[in-house]
Amino acid sequence: MVSTYIIGGSGYTGSELLRILSNHPKVDEITVTSRQLKGEAVSKHLPHIQENLKFEDVDVKKANKADFVFACIPHTKAMELVPKLKNKVIDLSADFRLKDVGVFEATYKVKHTAPELIPEAVYGLPELHRAEIKKARLVANPGCMATSVILALWPLVKNFKGNLAVCDCKTGISGAGKVANDRTHFGNVNENVTPYKIADHRHIAEMVQELDINVFFTPHVVPLTRGILTTVHAFVEGSTDKVAKVYKEAYKDEPFTKVIDGVPSMLAVRGSNYCQIGGFTQDGDRLVLFSAIDNLVKGASGQAVQNMNLMAGFKETVGLEQLGLAP
Amino acid sequence: MVSTYIIGGSGYTGSELLRILSNHPKVDEITVTSRQLKGEAVSKHLPHIQENLKFEDVDVKKANKADFVFACIPHTKAMELVPKLKNKVIDLSADFRLKDVGVFEATYKVKHTAPELIPEAVYGLPELHRAEIKKARLVANPGCMATSVILALWPLVKNFKGNLAVCDCKTGISGAGKVANDRTHFGNVNENVTPYKIADHRHIAEMVQELDINVFFTPHVVPLTRGILTTVHAFVEGSTDKVAKVYKEAYKDEPFTKVIDGVPSMLAVRGSNYCQIGGFTQDGDRLVLFSAIDNLVKGASGQAVQNMNLMAGFKETVGLEQLGLAP
Amino acid sequence: MVSTYIIGGSGYTGSELLRILSNHPKVDEITVTSRQLKGEAVSKHLPHIQENLKFEDVDVKKANKADFVFACIPHTKAMELVPKLKNKVIDLSADFRLKDVGVFEATYKVKHTAPELIPEAVYGLPELHRAEIKKARLVANPGCMATSVILALWPLVKNFKGNLAVCDCKTGISGAGKVANDRTHFGNVNENVTPYKIADHRHIAEMVQELDINVFFTPHVVPLTRGILTTVHAFVEGSTDKVAKVYKEAYKDEPFTKVIDGVPSMLAVRGSNYCQIGGFTQDGDRLVLFSAIDNLVKGASGQAVQNMNLMAGFKETVGLEQLGLAP
Amino acid sequence: MVSTYIIGGSGYTGSELLRILSNHPKVDEITVTSRQLKGEAVSKHLPHIQENLKFEDVDVKKANKADFVFACIPHTKAMELVPKLKNKVIDLSADFRLKDVGVFEATYKVKHTAPELIPEAVYGLPELHRAEIKKARLVANPGCMATSVILALWPLVKNFKGNLAVCDCKTGISGAGKVANDRTHFGNVNENVTPYKIADHRHIAEMVQELDINVFFTPHVVPLTRGILTTVHAFVEGSTDKVAKVYKEAYKDEPFTKVIDGVPSMLAVRGSNYCQIGGFTQDGDRLVLFSAIDNLVKGASGQAVQNMNLMAGFKETVGLEQLGLAP
Repeated sequence: MVSTYIIGGSGYTGSELLRILSNHPKVDEITVTSRQLKGEAVSKHLPHIQENLKFEDVDVKKANKADFVFACIPHTKAMELVPKLKNKVIDLSADFRLKDVGVFEATYKVKHTAPELIPEAVYGLPELHRAEIKKARLVANPGCMATSVILALWPLVKNFKGNLAVCDCKTGISGAGKVANDRTHFGNVNENVTPYKIADHRHIAEMVQELDINVFFTPHVVPLTRGILTTVHAFVEGSTDKVAKVYKEAYKDEPFTKVIDGVPSMLAVRGSNYCQIGGFTQDGDRLVLFSAIDNLVKGASGQAVQNMNLMAGFKETVGLEQLGLAP
Repeated sequence: MVSTYIIGGSGYTGSELLRILSNHPKVDEITVTSRQLKGEAVSKHLPHIQENLKFEDVDVKKANKADFVFACIPHTKAMELVPKLKNKVIDLSADFRLKDVGVFEATYKVKHTAPELIPEAVYGLPELHRAEIKKARLVANPGCMATSVILALWPLVKNFKGNLAVCDCKTGISGAGKVANDRTHFGNVNENVTPYKIADHRHIAEMVQELDINVFFTPHVVPLTRGILTTVHAFVEGSTDKVAKVYKEAYKDEPFTKVIDGVPSMLAVRGSNYCQIGGFTQDGDRLVLFSAIDNLVKGASGQAVQNMNLMAGFKETVGLEQLGLAP
Repeated sequence: MVSTYIIGGSGYTGSELLRILSNHPKVDEITVTSRQLKGEAVSKHLPHIQENLKFEDVDVKKANKADFVFACIPHTKAMELVPKLKNKVIDLSADFRLKDVGVFEATYKVKHTAPELIPEAVYGLPELHRAEIKKARLVANPGCMATSVILALWPLVKNFKGNLAVCDCKTGISGAGKVANDRTHFGNVNENVTPYKIADHRHIAEMVQELDINVFFTPHVVPLTRGILTTVHAFVEGSTDKVAKVYKEAYKDEPFTKVIDGVPSMLAVRGSNYCQIGGFTQDGDRLVLFSAIDNLVKGASGQAVQNMNLMAGFKETVGLEQLGLAP
Repeated sequence: MVSTYIIGGSGYTGSELLRILSNHPKVDEITVTSRQLKGEAVSKHLPHIQENLKFEDVDVKKANKADFVFACIPHTKAMELVPKLKNKVIDLSADFRLKDVGVFEATYKVKHTAPELIPEAVYGLPELHRAEIKKARLVANPGCMATSVILALWPLVKNFKGNLAVCDCKTGISGAGKVANDRTHFGNVNENVTPYKIADHRHIAEMVQELDINVFFTPHVVPLTRGILTTVHAFVEGSTDKVAKVYKEAYKDEPFTKVIDGVPSMLAVRGSNYCQIGGFTQDGDRLVLFSAIDNLVKGASGQAVQNMNLMAGFKETVGLEQLGLAP
């Protein structure tokens, strides 16, 4: 049994952690903080959470008594806080994801104030770094877009020649966070598809780091809440059958990343930690394939709990068995 | 031909006026202001508008040269501005809708600073006040909820005995305006139905004033952008057939308010100035009926143009012929 | 540990049972049938289900070896099948819900062919019939609308005088089932609110049976998939505080039906077996309150598993701990 | 003034023609047929249409008295009917779009029964074939996807070297038509993104014919009703500025196709005949740009009326002035 401490519980990744950890059979204590909501009942702000909890103020001493700290705070805030944490930490911000501090600073336009911790941090994508995660003290939980794209491209990149892949992403609005602004206004999202950060999304740096190729990536907000569907248009040498086989082999032991015969669907993974990959289609020189995840689960808090399970030596799937909520 | 001046063009009612007036065959000049966006191209912020316009700063002198001024500004701002306007004014705020200044002040929790203009203002619901609107200089354009409920109840109230009607409204989120806040965040609206102002919506005062009965009214936000469907549960003496007949008679010459044999539908009136009333059903003592409007058109800017047409002596429907955009 | 047999797994209630039973710690065997899909892999049609299952043909002998049979078949089909079943049965159709066969036949316009089983059947709403359910062999699982309305009205009806309550329901489209027709076409549901069965929904008979009052009930389809929000407009003698207190007392030991201080929300219960009741508001003679459930879980398959848990002597909540998927 | 005859008024393209022609100032007569609904009032099935019309049975003699016949019938049905029509015809099916009968037969897997009419038919995309359309008797109205992609790619293809463009389309469900099936069921569309015909959409043949290049094209259904957003990922030699300039030049006199500085938006063109092109972004070797149309208007019935205007010698924009319905 482990105790957990969530820093920043008022946003989507924090509330999603609360949802998952509330029913995690190996977690016997949850503390959740929010500077803004401290003292208030969690159920008042997150009425789906049944635990009888109050938002607390951040208290580093108390955090350091917990077995696991989840940092659900914006980038730059995490690099201030994490150096003070002594136990196991899963950081959901971007601050420790990039190994090259120069790339980090160029991407996030800010000076890194804790570069000494970067070497220690493990990029928390179990499909690529399971062994290191098991031994890690500090895990940098991947970005949602990066998770979607890296899982979709990795077996391709490792096994086939070709130098071109376009990733066209469709994402629900929860990826933009809980803060109300023009971008998240229902009147702008509904009945619309909105491309954004057309060639400069910050998660691209993670994709390049992990895949070691150039990635052409453009995300679009679609009018739904949860889910990322990535369409990969790849120009590689390799037949559909061969490619599908390589993917099945690559992920055959994965508990959550599933290569399917059909076409991946956001609904099939909604609310779950699963990633579906499939829809392999040949079109002359082009190979098309798709990945689907729930951006708040496999793309954020679910993957964070998967990392906690690995770090704690638990069964990797414990507390994450929930299936996709379809329809 | 008339010239028009829209004060407050950055919100939904202002942009909707731009959309309608751009194609109005009797309007040869449109000026639009926005304190916040002054100097910027309209098409940058409202890319559906084709007119080559810039947002200007408010200029009362210039406004007073226009034939018609539309005030699309929040309540309290309108009562400051309207006294300075010399020509014909259609005020889309609540400031001049309520005849009893005491009711206004109790409802809006603010002192009325231009009570001397209240007697002059005509409540701009053509179905009830067409003759006065034609002669008016100042028209107070009705609230969207009030339009929906008054049109749904008025023939009933005038013709049948009974002292109880519950109005359960379902409204799209555009009724909440263009400002981003928790209430308009896609993540809160989507896949949800949200009751609000359960017994104290401010439009109730307009309903009571125009209908002279007690109205039980509760609105709910539903996950769509445009439209209000009001379900009336009435306890009156009168058969369905008789009631339907009375409604058909009451609205038989109305160009926009249509009593239909089927059940009203938001989609059928979307983007149009039409109001559909129908779905008359008897259930023992209960009579059920429905009204449907587009809250931004018949519930706001379309009705404002209908009022302008009446005030200018134009054909009432000119510039408002657009049919509902279904599906 | 129990074995389960789902008859009719291709529809929404069947697939929802699969989703829930797949992770139920006390269920060690699931068989699922579908005449239409027999021989096909479940995961082909329900890609969120991870179990390695095939749809089978219905086999009464095999069903009779299972500890629990769930009948997810249309009304009239259930009354043909259930008499052949020897073990514990939870029937999700309407066939055994109504105690008065005359009422059943008037409501469903069909002759009941197994009236001898009606006395044995227990109406499967644990909040009202827990003790009988524990001892039952045959449970008639309530309708989704009936669950929503009965839970919302029951403490009121038992404790306060007054003879009038209007229930205005807003429901997601999954209540209409998985069959494609004009009513479920996206183009008709989206950006629309559609009243239907304005005064003659068949679940009214269940509400009347359980509450023993006249219920005025009108459902509306809103553009979302899962959830029922019932708005109760009641005319009773009793202050809001007193009413809220009575509700809290009535449901204080309920594991899933929760009286909350805020306003119930579909999102807060989505995907879960919880029912939220709250939003108590006084408006002169009118008292307003709301209930929210997921129509496929507490309104169907989740409640069926709750009933199974009771019938099997398991902890009532086992396998149903999943929290609402918000946002 | 012209008289019009719509064959097949019960589907989306037929009803959309009714919506547009009802307010067209140069149309004085509309007849609409539907085998299925003949004898029934149009307003019963299309409650947004205000014209007092009945669906009639198809009557070729009567059709031949009309100035313009619009064929809104499925492919193969059109090639049976069109040879019997003597006056001007705008065929919204695919039957006369492809100049090469072999390509048609390979694409649609059916023998062409009226190949003699193919040479006469003009592909009705005014941006490319305005002069021929003006003189045409038979116009083959383009497919919605083809309109979106051809307008997005044409200036690029004519002016820049490069041999690769991937078109990733996001389309509302109305493109799938009014017929209820699993694909159009709300439960499958909502909260989902569904790729389909991943490499073999039949409109590709039109794109290839008009652009004379290989097009990589994959469409996805997104949860909304109207609109196509095409994302073009092109690998060409040419800077963003230069490309934008070429597009602006190419379309500078177009009344409906507008090259904008911002990013195209479905909402900005919804319900209108406009096409927006823009969002030009350089990403190394990749150039990204977008086009947005309403699939039922510029992608179908609006373009058909634009063609009628050209064929009749009317002002090209008459009856099509309606702006996008945003939000």
